[in-house]
Amino acid sequence: MTAFEERTRRCQQRLVAANAEAAVLFPSTNLFYASGFREEPAERHLFLFVPQEGEPAFVAPEMYDEQIRDASWVDDLRLWADGEDPMELVEELAEEMAVRDSHLLVDDTMWALFTQDLRETLPDATFGLASEVFDDLRMRKDDAELDALRRAGAVADEVSVEIRKLGEEAIGMTESELAAEIESRLADHGGEEVAFGTIAGSGPNGAKPHHRHDDREIQRGDPVVLDFGAYVDDYPGDQTRTVVFAGEPPKEYEEVHEVVKDAQQAAVEAVEPGVTAESIDRAAREVIEDAGYGEQFVHRTGHGVGLDVHEDPYIVEGNEMELEAGMVFSIEPGVYLPGEFGVRIEDLVAVTEDSCERLNDSPRTWEPL
Amino acid sequence: MTAFEERTRRCQQRLVAANAEAAVLFPSTNLFYASGFREEPAERHLFLFVPQEGEPAFVAPEMYDEQIRDASWVDDLRLWADGEDPMELVEELAEEMAVRDSHLLVDDTMWALFTQDLRETLPDATFGLASEVFDDLRMRKDDAELDALRRAGAVADEVSVEIRKLGEEAIGMTESELAAEIESRLADHGGEEVAFGTIAGSGPNGAKPHHRHDDREIQRGDPVVLDFGAYVDDYPGDQTRTVVFAGEPPKEYEEVHEVVKDAQQAAVEAVEPGVTAESIDRAAREVIEDAGYGEQFVHRTGHGVGLDVHEDPYIVEGNEMELEAGMVFSIEPGVYLPGEFGVRIEDLVAVTEDSCERLNDSPRTWEPL
Repeated sequence: MTAFEERTRRCQQRLVAANAEAAVLFPSTNLFYASGFREEPAERHLFLFVPQEGEPAFVAPEMYDEQIRDASWVDDLRLWADGEDPMELVEELAEEMAVRDSHLLVDDTMWALFTQDLRETLPDATFGLASEVFDDLRMRKDDAELDALRRAGAVADEVSVEIRKLGEEAIGMTESELAAEIESRLADHGGEEVAFGTIAGSGPNGAKPHHRHDDREIQRGDPVVLDFGAYVDDYPGDQTRTVVFAGEPPKEYEEVHEVVKDAQQAAVEAVEPGVTAESIDRAAREVIEDAGYGEQFVHRTGHGVGLDVHEDPYIVEGNEMELEAGMVFSIEPGVYLPGEFGVRIEDLVAVTEDSCERLNDSPRTWEPL
Repeated sequence: MTAFEERTRRCQQRLVAANAEAAVLFPSTNLFYASGFREEPAERHLFLFVPQEGEPAFVAPEMYDEQIRDASWVDDLRLWADGEDPMELVEELAEEMAVRDSHLLVDDTMWALFTQDLRETLPDATFGLASEVFDDLRMRKDDAELDALRRAGAVADEVSVEIRKLGEEAIGMTESELAAEIESRLADHGGEEVAFGTIAGSGPNGAKPHHRHDDREIQRGDPVVLDFGAYVDDYPGDQTRTVVFAGEPPKEYEEVHEVVKDAQQAAVEAVEPGVTAESIDRAAREVIEDAGYGEQFVHRTGHGVGLDVHEDPYIVEGNEMELEAGMVFSIEPGVYLPGEFGVRIEDLVAVTEDSCERLNDSPRTWEPL
């Protein structure tokens, strides 16, 4: 039995516990996790029905026939051609699986386009979210997953060090040029694809936590938030450093950087099995609040990382989930001074039997390397 | 009034005609089209409510405050912080807009995670899809959009020619290395981000229409399907050529390539205002069927292109929509011989007053350049 099939069988057991008769997946990381077939969401109807018992089945565009057979252990494929109605196949399959009037768990990321079609085709069914059965499984990484995450962490580390060594060379580059340089080096080091839009936020742009990059030129003394990562064997890296390539930073910068670094360290040290996710958020927030920057730490401390760059467990006030060995998440406190600069420092960590392992280890200093 | 606001006003008029009291957008190209604010879908609740009359309003994570204000003309922002409940803000806003029990059009790509929350928070509302008001607007490109699409087409053309000139150098490269080379050159030529996963399908991999690239090494005589593009000013390129870098191709290849090229040409020549989308599909399919490869042309002939790489109008049997000047779509017939090779040739075209303009113009031959 492949790892993918095993996961599907565990998912089927959880469907029973969740009182749901089937999960209905579409191109998503859940679909990959269960079937081995990976695809991006798109406008063509592609579903995997996983019933409580028995064999799962795809409803898929004909053009995916060979790819699905190559990638997946699931061999029941119901194919439709462009111009045909895929929902007829869905109706037949739901009839065969006897789930026409059942409780069905759809992928959390399934497009409304498809959930509306499911609701119309199966008017007597009720709908919940597949995270109910998948999140719990996916949160606990197995050894192969942890290894891939370590390798992705190492790639981000290597590129971080290389990029920081640009030093004077980075002055005058636009953020977009710097981001392209980062992405090209991620590929050189074995990254398969960037895990998310690379962030190179210089000066005031760094004060917008989700700014990516634009044509602003990096100036001497600019703090620059560098947040990037690439996939390695389907698992992403995600690391942030805030650095100065050359010159003197603004005077408040050094202090803010120190506060964020201390907050990040405090949060990492707080990690162990049995403590709650929110307690890690509090550990970071306390340091920043004590330093008087509480209002400028405008986001949660972290997010789980796995096949999705953002997944459970979220490290946020209100999340009372207890951490367990094998969980992987980011610890990334930040302080943002609008119009001036931002500072964020982020590592991924894996919970171990007694504490945690950092998956990133490049210098957390800001000075030129 | 900005172009974005104008579009929103037109959308509001269409809401009246569609008997819907509001559109509810989330991070999508519709959101960008209407507001000027661009973001990828993610797990945090971010909505734009556009009522039939009056001013639209965002419900958004606090951390996006500055970015939304910078990017959008919409200035009513209801912000929530990590750890707070965004659906309370949604309920208040729906109350203010008097749409709690109305018909609401949600983004077609809105995640089930969010549509489920909307259904729970607004149990008396009914839901449709925002495409009902947006697709029609977005399908007709204005001059600025056409210009951006032309520039994106030119970038794809330039890279296509450069890559084909690799000739012997490409032999022994893996598909993934070739794809990285393509993507790096797209960036060099001014592409902002790849528009979709670059396809470099060599030999039998080319017979899977949606294969991207793997570690297969390109061999002498391999037909290689190269399908790629990058965004320029928010609009994507999308072009395909099937080429041989060096050596003698399989014996059937030359014939198949000729058939696909003729089919593509026939479809391009069939384009003019007033004809149906499906008639363009038929024009291509007829050539391929006549040559005996009908069964191997397993997908539609094309898709609209705009802010989304795949959008209306779809060039497919059954789509009786009449083409109009300003519509832009791909024409990309293909023939796939499983286990052997595939051939696809694709250009984007813009419908003009009397025929169409090709947005790609690199050689459609297969021989080394």
